[in-house]
Amino acid sequence: EAEAKKKEDAAKKPTMTLGGQLQADAIWFGQDQANMNAVGDLEDGWAFRRARIVSRGEAFDVVEYQCGFDFALSGRPSFLDVWVGLKDLPHLDSLRVGHFFEPFSLERLTQNRYNTFLERSVADSFAPARNLGLMGSRAIFEEHVTLAAGVFRSDSDVLGDDTGDDGEQAATARATWLSHYDEASGGASYVHWGLAYSYRDTDEGRVQFQARPEVSLNALGEGTVPSFVNTGFIPADHYQLFGMEFAWIQGPFSVQSEVMLVPVDRLAGDDVTFEAAYIYGSYFLTGEHRPYIRKVGFMDRVMPFENFFHVKTEEGTIETGKGAWEIAARLSYIDLDDDNIAGGELTDFTLALNWYLNPYTRVKWEYIHAHLDRNSVESNAQIAGMRFDIDF
Amino acid sequence: EAEAKKKEDAAKKPTMTLGGQLQADAIWFGQDQANMNAVGDLEDGWAFRRARIVSRGEAFDVVEYQCGFDFALSGRPSFLDVWVGLKDLPHLDSLRVGHFFEPFSLERLTQNRYNTFLERSVADSFAPARNLGLMGSRAIFEEHVTLAAGVFRSDSDVLGDDTGDDGEQAATARATWLSHYDEASGGASYVHWGLAYSYRDTDEGRVQFQARPEVSLNALGEGTVPSFVNTGFIPADHYQLFGMEFAWIQGPFSVQSEVMLVPVDRLAGDDVTFEAAYIYGSYFLTGEHRPYIRKVGFMDRVMPFENFFHVKTEEGTIETGKGAWEIAARLSYIDLDDDNIAGGELTDFTLALNWYLNPYTRVKWEYIHAHLDRNSVESNAQIAGMRFDIDF
Amino acid sequence: EAEAKKKEDAAKKPTMTLGGQLQADAIWFGQDQANMNAVGDLEDGWAFRRARIVSRGEAFDVVEYQCGFDFALSGRPSFLDVWVGLKDLPHLDSLRVGHFFEPFSLERLTQNRYNTFLERSVADSFAPARNLGLMGSRAIFEEHVTLAAGVFRSDSDVLGDDTGDDGEQAATARATWLSHYDEASGGASYVHWGLAYSYRDTDEGRVQFQARPEVSLNALGEGTVPSFVNTGFIPADHYQLFGMEFAWIQGPFSVQSEVMLVPVDRLAGDDVTFEAAYIYGSYFLTGEHRPYIRKVGFMDRVMPFENFFHVKTEEGTIETGKGAWEIAARLSYIDLDDDNIAGGELTDFTLALNWYLNPYTRVKWEYIHAHLDRNSVESNAQIAGMRFDIDF
Repeated sequence: EAEAKKKEDAAKKPTMTLGGQLQADAIWFGQDQANMNAVGDLEDGWAFRRARIVSRGEAFDVVEYQCGFDFALSGRPSFLDVWVGLKDLPHLDSLRVGHFFEPFSLERLTQNRYNTFLERSVADSFAPARNLGLMGSRAIFEEHVTLAAGVFRSDSDVLGDDTGDDGEQAATARATWLSHYDEASGGASYVHWGLAYSYRDTDEGRVQFQARPEVSLNALGEGTVPSFVNTGFIPADHYQLFGMEFAWIQGPFSVQSEVMLVPVDRLAGDDVTFEAAYIYGSYFLTGEHRPYIRKVGFMDRVMPFENFFHVKTEEGTIETGKGAWEIAARLSYIDLDDDNIAGGELTDFTLALNWYLNPYTRVKWEYIHAHLDRNSVESNAQIAGMRFDIDF
Repeated sequence: EAEAKKKEDAAKKPTMTLGGQLQADAIWFGQDQANMNAVGDLEDGWAFRRARIVSRGEAFDVVEYQCGFDFALSGRPSFLDVWVGLKDLPHLDSLRVGHFFEPFSLERLTQNRYNTFLERSVADSFAPARNLGLMGSRAIFEEHVTLAAGVFRSDSDVLGDDTGDDGEQAATARATWLSHYDEASGGASYVHWGLAYSYRDTDEGRVQFQARPEVSLNALGEGTVPSFVNTGFIPADHYQLFGMEFAWIQGPFSVQSEVMLVPVDRLAGDDVTFEAAYIYGSYFLTGEHRPYIRKVGFMDRVMPFENFFHVKTEEGTIETGKGAWEIAARLSYIDLDDDNIAGGELTDFTLALNWYLNPYTRVKWEYIHAHLDRNSVESNAQIAGMRFDIDF
Repeated sequence: EAEAKKKEDAAKKPTMTLGGQLQADAIWFGQDQANMNAVGDLEDGWAFRRARIVSRGEAFDVVEYQCGFDFALSGRPSFLDVWVGLKDLPHLDSLRVGHFFEPFSLERLTQNRYNTFLERSVADSFAPARNLGLMGSRAIFEEHVTLAAGVFRSDSDVLGDDTGDDGEQAATARATWLSHYDEASGGASYVHWGLAYSYRDTDEGRVQFQARPEVSLNALGEGTVPSFVNTGFIPADHYQLFGMEFAWIQGPFSVQSEVMLVPVDRLAGDDVTFEAAYIYGSYFLTGEHRPYIRKVGFMDRVMPFENFFHVKTEEGTIETGKGAWEIAARLSYIDLDDDNIAGGELTDFTLALNWYLNPYTRVKWEYIHAHLDRNSVESNAQIAGMRFDIDF
């Protein structure tokens, strides 16, 4: 009866669930002199990386929505996923309009808190941020293949708005294939392949690509980490993005890699192509694995076998649960040099140690060696980072 | 028993309900050359019109509060209804202090998402926005008459604050009369009459009136829709607002109209009077009607007879629920020309098609023809708009 | 069974409780000519003092978090308590990392809505605001003694961030002693003693102290209340804070006092020391008392014996519940004159009347006489304030 009553209520008003996310970072830098000359003196700091409140829900079984804001980033509060959609249509799992990620890149689509490293790789500099648009998606072949495609305003601001008469459209599509999936273990081993493509108008006849050394610090006024590589503005009407994805998860061991190519159709001079790639491996010392969401083709939340606790029992002894522990290493690379564009080349090597206290709380430690080659000058920076991370 | 427990808990802590609202607009403009000369080149765009989070509740039966913020408008986050009040006093239904709408204009007081058109009419340019103040209200004669009156700071900023020693007060009152109300059908037909008045100090010795062509686009920096008519600053100590309201709802058919007169007591020169008016008709193709809230004297949420759905049944056929469909037309007018003030005259004719997927989700299409007569130059703009709209 | 189910759910996802706070102030000023010359013409105004949304919860019994934002203050939305922590560790009640108050000052640590006056005293100008850091705390001797200590970034911005390589650290500790606590009456009488200390690096080699006359108005652009006393920037590498606390609660009667000393190690010239102090008494006409939280050593929410109501009964008579009524007086003092630093001396005398409608709703009236002595010129300001205050 209570069940029937609740159902009736649900039919009367949309549901709403509130959640949030909170990340505090401490970052330390070491630079050689050439690097200081190239990018300036990087200041150590503590800063909130993310502080988010998100509401999501459904209306009358067929409508779904999400409405989230970040209070920690510049342009605060900035818009996160803010969209309304229809679900379970006869030929589409989901049809959305609003502000959300375009279907491009495994690393980009996987939520930040389920990614292995503090920041996504330098290759992510090419992946579109959230934009205002319309997208449909569908999983087929018993969720072994996913398809998603959409049209978007190509360069929405941090509040999700975009005006201007000159095109400024983008069309983006992604397909994934799950060539192996171990049903018996609930997905503890699988192999993922992905391809994505985007055709994009530029905004105001020019485009710019840049990348930070996989670290971020968002303080007011002072201390923001500068881009290490940067093409400057390139006069162009449109450009393309090609992305290839691969991931192989075998229980506690995983390998993941992406390659991106970006041909730019310049208004003057030869066309240029930029590229980026990364490969990483991770291993759970405590035996867990990185789960997968088959319906959308990207990674899910890590669930420790045992949550952390450290308490005095009634007998006076101290008992401890250890949580999950993961080690990982990543090599990543971005090349923004081509023809007469000298944006630079950046190669990052990263070592990481992650402690999952429970599925919703993490502490992460990271060491990055960044090697920059720009205008024929080579330089190096060492970066150490620590993150306290909870979502709820 | 559970009931008793719940009651006891409620006595211990204020209740809190969280809701929100999300509107994404796409707007396209066409202008003749004279209009481009008069107001500039209007840029097409996509933008969030509203993105809101609102908490409301009660404390110990007699205190009520509301606390809402908008993240999409300029000055973000801006303050919406943010007030605390007493309710069910012996001679007042409600006594509030804080930031809320002054009691003026049927269209203004009706919540944006229950209004028929994308934007309120040009006449709404005269209606006060939310201000900091104190208001009492009461319904009498078995809710056939409502009365509301309050005193306010006359020009609070987007954060609800207002400082300054020079008066800057406003007194505003509204009375409504429900001359007919069909109880048998639950209010499917009724006739509403309203009168409102406001006496207002100006801020810093001057006042300005302006109106957009019933369309809004809130992007950062570029692309905001300019005012078509604008008096500029008029030196004055105070001015008055007179408002008259009429609405006749007969099942799916409705007519609504308001007229406003604004005499301004100028510091130099003759007094001037501005005016605005609108009339509109709407018709629900699917038979619904526009409901009314008798206690406060304005319109309520439209409830479709059948919600939208579009699903494949187990037998493989596709079934569809159509939601509610409404067509509407509006003629509106504002005249900011008087004596040596040449603010201009703007006449808008609007056609609208509204699809209510369910009581909380709407898609709206609108075509506006705006005719501007300013400084003896006539010009025209065509505007097409589309809105995706959900509240929760 | 429902209990078991709920427990199981709690184990699956962090809990989250949402609350908020809303305060609207009206402030009027009267000044003699000397005061206008010294600090400028103060403008009356209405403004929101606080408008806050806070989420807090636990994850898996051992992790706790809080995440709150204020929409009314400058730098909006500004960060309030935003932290994640471990609780009930074998030797610590709580270990936190994030943005929160340093353990210094009884008045500062007591939540604003449980303090007796509209604003904390002028002495609070020395107490650190919330900063990014790490803190542990513990109550011992059956909660008769509390200890708290932490390290912090010394000067986080309103978004909780702080960068810069030059130290900018602070170490702060506080100890309290409850020398008397009447268990029988549930803490209606008690005596509290406290000591606190902080050693602090300056930011960019300089430090500044200033104080307003215990009143605040946060309007955009115009009308913010200026500091009456102000040292200007003092070149220094570090400084110290010493704080002493005392409170004696005897049923409806209470006395509270703090003294602070601030020696500054100047880069040039002799070291200087600033000081501030306040003492106040309050009395509940309706017999309530100011409660205490023993685990952390500061004050708790006032609970009226009878909540306010004012309703017509079915028999037509009017019944009223009166809430709680409190009168209070405070004398406070800050001295920013030493050696060649002429920051000024400010002495405030305050009378207050507080009406607690229920535990969560308050209306407060206050009169302040502020006496300023700066650069050998004496001047006076009278301030009247009113606050509408609800939390939920």
